[in-house]
Formats: sequence, C-alpha cells, structure tokens
Amino acid sequence: MLLGSVEAGGTKFVCAVGDENYRTKDIVSFPTTTPAETLQKTIDYFRQFDIKALSVASFGPIELRRNDPKYGYITNTPKPNWADTDFIGTLKEAFDIPMFWTTDVNGSAYGEYVMSTLTNERINSLVYYTIGTGVGAGAIIDGDFLGEMGHPEMGHVRLKRHPDDLDFNGICPFHGDCLEGLVAGPTFEARTGKPGKEVPLTDHVWDIMAYYVAQAALQVTLIMRPGKIIFGGGVVSEPFLKKVRQQFSELLNDYVNVGNLDDYIAMPAIKHNGSATLGNFALALRELQA
Amino acid sequence: MLLGSVEAGGTKFVCAVGDENYRTKDIVSFPTTTPAETLQKTIDYFRQFDIKALSVASFGPIELRRNDPKYGYITNTPKPNWADTDFIGTLKEAFDIPMFWTTDVNGSAYGEYVMSTLTNERINSLVYYTIGTGVGAGAIIDGDFLGEMGHPEMGHVRLKRHPDDLDFNGICPFHGDCLEGLVAGPTFEARTGKPGKEVPLTDHVWDIMAYYVAQAALQVTLIMRPGKIIFGGGVVSEPFLKKVRQQFSELLNDYVNVGNLDDYIAMPAIKHNGSATLGNFALALRELQA
Repeated sequence: MLLGSVEAGGTKFVCAVGDENYRTKDIVSFPTTTPAETLQKTIDYFRQFDIKALSVASFGPIELRRNDPKYGYITNTPKPNWADTDFIGTLKEAFDIPMFWTTDVNGSAYGEYVMSTLTNERINSLVYYTIGTGVGAGAIIDGDFLGEMGHPEMGHVRLKRHPDDLDFNGICPFHGDCLEGLVAGPTFEARTGKPGKEVPLTDHVWDIMAYYVAQAALQVTLIMRPGKIIFGGGVVSEPFLKKVRQQFSELLNDYVNVGNLDDYIAMPAIKHNGSATLGNFALALRELQA
Repeated sequence: MLLGSVEAGGTKFVCAVGDENYRTKDIVSFPTTTPAETLQKTIDYFRQFDIKALSVASFGPIELRRNDPKYGYITNTPKPNWADTDFIGTLKEAFDIPMFWTTDVNGSAYGEYVMSTLTNERINSLVYYTIGTGVGAGAIIDGDFLGEMGHPEMGHVRLKRHPDDLDFNGICPFHGDCLEGLVAGPTFEARTGKPGKEVPLTDHVWDIMAYYVAQAALQVTLIMRPGKIIFGGGVVSEPFLKKVRQQFSELLNDYVNVGNLDDYIAMPAIKHNGSATLGNFALALRELQA
C-alpha cells in the first residue's frame, strides 16, 4: 500500500511516497512558487502513484480545526500569494482519498514520536522546535497534537534578555525581540553582518543564542513537562545543543528532574530532515484507519 | 453517596464532604502544622462520614506518576517537616477506598474544567494559575492533566523584564527573577516595603505586575493554545486582570485569535476559593468509577 507525504515549506516542497512501514519509495522536491503552480506540481507528482491516503505538513499559519469553514487553508501568512490558500480543497479535487492536514513542525514532531515508539524510547509527549529562517514548534501528547484554539506559535514567546544583547532589538516584524526575533537564522546577519555559517561557534553570539534557546526549552519544560525536546533546523548542531544544555541546566537549577539531559534535549532521531516525511506517512495511515 | 476532598495548602488544610453532584455537605479548615498532626486531623474528620472515594489536591512538589515508588508523596518541599511525606499512604492506612492524588492547582483547574462543562462553556483545555504566597499553575487538556515527567512548575518560567523594574532581583530562592520571584504576593513588601493590600491599583507597581502576568498568559497561549486561562489567588482581582488583558493584547499583537479576551483571561467561575473542592469531588468520583 502506498501513502503520500507533502512537506510544504516556504522555500521548497518535498513530496514523497512511502509504504505502511513508513519506508520512502520515491521522493522529489521543487521550489515553492505560486500556489497554483506549486499545488499543480504536487498533484502531477502523486498522479504517478496509486496512493491510498495523504498527509500534508505545511508552513503556516494554517487552519486545522476541522469544524472551521477555513479548515485546510493556509490563512494569513505574510508569504506573497499564499494567504487564504485552500490547500486541502485543491488536493481533494484531484484525489478523493483520506487526507491529514497539520503544520510542518507538527509533522516533524509526529515523525519523531513515531520513531520513539519504534526504538522503544517510550516518549509519550515531546516538543519539536525548528530554528531556521523562522522559529516554530509542534507538540505531541499521548499521540495527539497540542492546541485547542489552533496550532502552537511557540516561536513568538518573550524571553529574559541576555545582558550582552540588550542593544539588539530583534527582527520579528510582529514582536521585535520574541524568540524568533532573537534566534532565527537571519539574526546572525542582523547582529554580526555575516551569515551564521561564517560565525564560528567560539563567537560569543552563540552563547547568547544558546541562552535564549535554553529559555525556550525551560518554558516548555515547566509548562508541559514533556518527555523530550527536539531541536532541528539549519541553526542547530550538536555542538550548539551542548551550549544549550549547559545554559538550560543553570536556569533550571535542578528544580525538576528531566532525566538524562543528553536524551532530553536532542537533535532529531530521523536524519536528513526526514522527520516530517515519516510523520506524514504515519498520519496518512492513521487517517486511513480512522 | 459521599465523596471526600482535601485541599492541602501550605498554610491551611480544607477538608470537605460532598455528593456525586459536587454539592458540598460539610467543610472544615485547620492550620497546616506537622504532617503527623495535620494528617491525623484529616483522618479524624473523614471518620465522621461514610465516604466512598477521596481526592487530595496538595501543595508540592509531589510525586504523581503512579508507577513511581514515591507516588502519593510530597517530595522535596522546602516547607519544614513536610519533605518526603507519604500523604496517600497515610490516608490509605485509615481508609481503604479509591483515592486520587494531584497538585492543589491541578485540583482547581479540574474544578473549573468541570464547571465549564456544567455551564456549557465547552472548554476542552484550560490553565489555572494561582498568584498568592507563591505562583503555581495546573493545566487540563481534554479532561486530563498535563505533565509526563511530573506536574507543571509554570511559576518558575523566565520573563522579559519590565524596563522600570530592572533593579529588582526577584525573591525566588531558586531562580531569583522567575515569574514567582517577580509577582508572588511577598514581592510587594520587597519592592515597596508595604503589603500588597496597602498598595493601591493606581501604583505603577501593578502595571509592572500585570506586564509579567500577561507574559505568563502569552507563554501558555503560544505554547498550548488553551481554550481559557484562569487566574486565582490573593494577588488577583478583576481590576488587576483588566490591566493584564491590556498588556496581553499589546504583547500578542493579534498574532493568534483567542476569542473574547474577557472570557479567555478570567477569574475562577467557582467563587470563594471553591475550585479545588469541586474539582476534588469530581476527581474522587472519576477514581471511583475508573
């Protein structure tokens, strides 16, 4: 049996076909252009296969409350041309099959959750952050997604400012110095004039970044008490997470027990940005069996 | 049928007996002294009634993971004499009936959740904060409590500091300027030399307090997207919540929709600090029927 996965990012789409054991059989990617063109490419791709169900993990914000008239839409995104796009409606016209619809980070979170069940890690709740062009996060509790009023927007929480960073106003157009405004990839350019790739980990700016990311981890720890917090995205590396764990430890001050910190704050278990694709296969299967 | 409720606070215990419709039939309170004396008073109280089940909502930290050997204990509390107290074990020796065990704020959150079902408000997820001597919060999602690794400790998140409050170091012995260290009742003495009751709402210190409490509401909004956030405790009043809503609105900047703000950020629906007692009756009944 074949299942479809769409990871709809603001820069590129990754479409894949897999089986009920979540093995990828085929995968393509193409740039995100206009909705009409990009969704048509998506439809053309899946027309080659006899897929039984499909899951889409999309950039947002999106409407995912099933009782809302705009369910299946990308809503008020600032991305040109994409606001108010009926994503699922367009796909449903081409394929009359069960479809699941969630955010990109929820898809990744679900993939990591499924992987934890396969590896017997037995995590019942986890948070998946991506730190790249923007900052987003999805959360799973007992196999379900968090969010009654809509999906989380954890990238926009406020944080205690680092004493050596008080002059930086942040780059979020909505909130200035929220988490995204302080640690998204483009903050390197804004702070140092250089892209992140050219800033060595010995640079103090990485300590400042780690301080903020550690606070994000601290917030979800104290609010949700999840089993695990995963960080993905272009800004994240294992050496950077070492710094994050150290700052997290100092901030938490042993107040609650999170188990082994190297397991608790970790990179994705699924490599090569594959978390959302695997998550989509599992969600498509779940939707088919619902 | 009679059900028992223990609201175990650090200052006083409130014990009550109610029926399966959550109506209070009898209620007493007494000061929290030593564990031996206070638990004996609790047992003596309930010996007067033929209760079929009991729920305890306790100050903490507590162990509430049922598979932990210390389940039913108050654990590493700084409160003298109470660390490592086997609360449920002691009660079980006296009463061989089903017992539920959770935190004081979880009990209150559950009471408000149950009330929202009775009033047809249809809230599936909510957060209950108490701001008094300390700051704590409990959270309900679809009738269950949040927290795989233990109960939330939302009182100890870090916040962006108010520009007019940068000289105040906060009073939390563990974290300095965490939420509790910045807005718990005793911060009035620390900031102004006067108890909170004597500081009029026109004093700027209330704006500073509202800024921090609004950030707490913002964090759980963006992380959990709950249906409602309730604030109780001695520091909270309706005029204060007006200030909180205004600051929340500015911080959120319309980024997500939370519905009517007066409904979203609100005082408890159950008056006279009765949320935990009602919650306990419902939890005792649930435990009996489990």
